[in-house]
Amino acid sequence: MYFEAFRAGAVYRLQPVTLSAAEIVAFAREFDPQRIHVDPNFAAQGPFGGLIASGYHTLAAVWKRWIEAGVLGDESMGGPGLDEVKWLAPVRPDDVLNTTVTISTTRRSERLERGIVSLHFDVVNQDGIRVMTCDGAVMVQLAPR
Amino acid sequence: MYFEAFRAGAVYRLQPVTLSAAEIVAFAREFDPQRIHVDPNFAAQGPFGGLIASGYHTLAAVWKRWIEAGVLGDESMGGPGLDEVKWLAPVRPDDVLNTTVTISTTRRSERLERGIVSLHFDVVNQDGIRVMTCDGAVMVQLAPR
Repeated sequence: MYFEAFRAGAVYRLQPVTLSAAEIVAFAREFDPQRIHVDPNFAAQGPFGGLIASGYHTLAAVWKRWIEAGVLGDESMGGPGLDEVKWLAPVRPDDVLNTTVTISTTRRSERLERGIVSLHFDVVNQDGIRVMTCDGAVMVQLAPR
Repeated sequence: MYFEAFRAGAVYRLQPVTLSAAEIVAFAREFDPQRIHVDPNFAAQGPFGGLIASGYHTLAAVWKRWIEAGVLGDESMGGPGLDEVKWLAPVRPDDVLNTTVTISTTRRSERLERGIVSLHFDVVNQDGIRVMTCDGAVMVQLAPR
């Protein structure tokens, strides 16, 4: 999908994300080995009353669902970054996270022959509690002329 | 380390991060299965002229080095989020990424009995090219009184 086909305001509902306790611990051992993420006994005594997922894990797992949605294709040229990543509430083992992605803006790059598609992620758990929001972007090739 | 011990302006140099091609592909298969991250042959023909790491991989691998630095302890209460994550240049297999973390501000939470320590990450590769910058934060327990 080339840049010109993206429309601001389009909304996509992603397949749910669920992280098991084993996945939470495995990710955190590799990338965020704080005891609230890797040690269920410690975590049970800690500020969240149990194991919680690393925010980086939630972020990456939601991103995967966005890629799997197949909206971006091989015309993607990678992402310039993220803004306002907010981890608003704990993500616990076996939570079911539902994500809405909204295309907030589309604009031509000023410098380069490409477009920039901005995305807003809104992630809510099975109890209706918002656990994460995030603004991302992808650079996308222009259609051949 | 309790909140009161953190000092704005303190600078930490992290141990280097190096991602192998196999690690780049394995992470991206799980979290960012775009062909520029998982398919070396496709990536060689693509805009970056070769396989590049998912930005989420770089972000998480740098964060791990920060946790390993041992500045945060069990007094950490997790992170509220990230701002201005900028993926400025490609990270390629076997690049050597050197990271500086600067404590930008420390402040008491207005609502809760905790402190918020803001961190700026600056990641530069072996050629002196800045590949990522990011502002993060951690919530930290106050010292017992």
